[in-house]
Amino acid sequence: MSREAFVNGEYKEFINSKVHIEDRGYQFADGVYEVFAILDSKIVDYDGHIKRLYRSLDELKIPSPIQKKSYKFHIREIIKRNLINDGLIYLQVTRGVASRDFKFPKNSKSSIVIIGKNAPSNFHNDNFNKGINVKTTKDLRWKRVDIKSLNLLPPVLAKQYAVDNGCEEAWLLDEKGYITEGSSSNAWIVKNKTVITRPVSNSILNGITRSTLIKSFMKVGYKFVEKKFNLNDIKDADEAFITSATQFVMPVITVNNIKIGNGSVGEFVKIFKEIYFKSISLS
Amino acid sequence: MSREAFVNGEYKEFINSKVHIEDRGYQFADGVYEVFAILDSKIVDYDGHIKRLYRSLDELKIPSPIQKKSYKFHIREIIKRNLINDGLIYLQVTRGVASRDFKFPKNSKSSIVIIGKNAPSNFHNDNFNKGINVKTTKDLRWKRVDIKSLNLLPPVLAKQYAVDNGCEEAWLLDEKGYITEGSSSNAWIVKNKTVITRPVSNSILNGITRSTLIKSFMKVGYKFVEKKFNLNDIKDADEAFITSATQFVMPVITVNNIKIGNGSVGEFVKIFKEIYFKSISLS
Repeated sequence: MSREAFVNGEYKEFINSKVHIEDRGYQFADGVYEVFAILDSKIVDYDGHIKRLYRSLDELKIPSPIQKKSYKFHIREIIKRNLINDGLIYLQVTRGVASRDFKFPKNSKSSIVIIGKNAPSNFHNDNFNKGINVKTTKDLRWKRVDIKSLNLLPPVLAKQYAVDNGCEEAWLLDEKGYITEGSSSNAWIVKNKTVITRPVSNSILNGITRSTLIKSFMKVGYKFVEKKFNLNDIKDADEAFITSATQFVMPVITVNNIKIGNGSVGEFVKIFKEIYFKSISLS
Repeated sequence: MSREAFVNGEYKEFINSKVHIEDRGYQFADGVYEVFAILDSKIVDYDGHIKRLYRSLDELKIPSPIQKKSYKFHIREIIKRNLINDGLIYLQVTRGVASRDFKFPKNSKSSIVIIGKNAPSNFHNDNFNKGINVKTTKDLRWKRVDIKSLNLLPPVLAKQYAVDNGCEEAWLLDEKGYITEGSSSNAWIVKNKTVITRPVSNSILNGITRSTLIKSFMKVGYKFVEKKFNLNDIKDADEAFITSATQFVMPVITVNNIKIGNGSVGEFVKIFKEIYFKSISLS
């Protein structure tokens, strides 16, 4: 059985899944996306992701290419056709194909692509137990990163900078030296038994994993505060971690080669991972 | 004869010119581009554009997919195959196809697309004689717009905002209220017989048309200064105009509905258009 993708209304063999060279996603990054984790062939926190997808589309005035209720059907079909057990779904919508011109085309039809893959490595306890290393770098991104758009060159460069420095993730610094978020994750620290993450604004993406984890803090009564933090706060932190749809809750053991706490996976983050998995919805 | 594009080493029928859904240009805006004006089937200022293309590629560490000398060959072939007389060439290079991951892939091969079209409307004296209207809006772009990358969603939104306000171009305002540049052009004013445009930095694209025009000012001895200007400077200006590869030198007659000078095409910009066309190289 060969891998398949959903491309503009058709299920296609993955290697032959193509879009036109004048798709505005290709020429202008004029589109949005979502990544869904799949566990036991079920979609994690589907409603949150679809709600955010529609928010992103609305902000960019891109019409949805399919009916709202059809997204789940096609995602499930991709899960089924690709035998995805634990993995992820990548879904992208663009403003469609039109003769190249910056302004919105009058009659384009939005494009949609859905792909999926098994990604057991993301879900392995071994990775969690190792934790990750973070490198900080300037946040060069545009000023509306609350929209989950394809305008992703700056986080690509940030991630590569982290990799070049032997790290797995980059944390981005705003002009005053506060962390905005990771290149593809939200950033957190724990200090004096209080969990800290930056409040939602145009400067960070409102992570679905972030929201689910915050809700679970509320439930179990953990001390949690939304406020900006900087490198000094990180140095004094007892623990640090990231959240994202495909990494869930992942411990950070060093930032700029400085050990967080004793430089190994902390006790809080282990509990947070547990309560996160108890709080997710599967559909 | 049907329209043709150059796509990854092959000349393809335009409507069947496609790229893989996991091309990093489509998923991450991880690529760069150039637009060349074509006059009388010849390429305007080829050397400047190719030099800038290589600078953009170098900044992003994307290897050129073809030899440097081959670019001119393929552009000329697209001109020939599409019977382009006066028009433009759009050329795009991306980091290629790879399984989606923010960090640079290890073994991808850069992708290249070249398309061309006749675009007589851009070159018509009628358009020049009408001039254009400009609307200002916040510059939301990332901090490395000196790289001519595909990270173009912010200028797309700015251009559409201008169009929604009955204008043809947006001028972007930095945090201190100075104009950086247009959404797809450089911005200029003329005041007290002195031509003013913003100096080159990471905040603007180093326009090829801009450079050619500056060289021609030097030659004929026009007073020219590179400095930032704001809305007050614009209100006091005698003339205003934009430059871009496909609009050449284009008069601006209003900014935010305020007339520049007497609100019609000025005398300086007419001369500048003349000296610009005398300064270009055709190859």
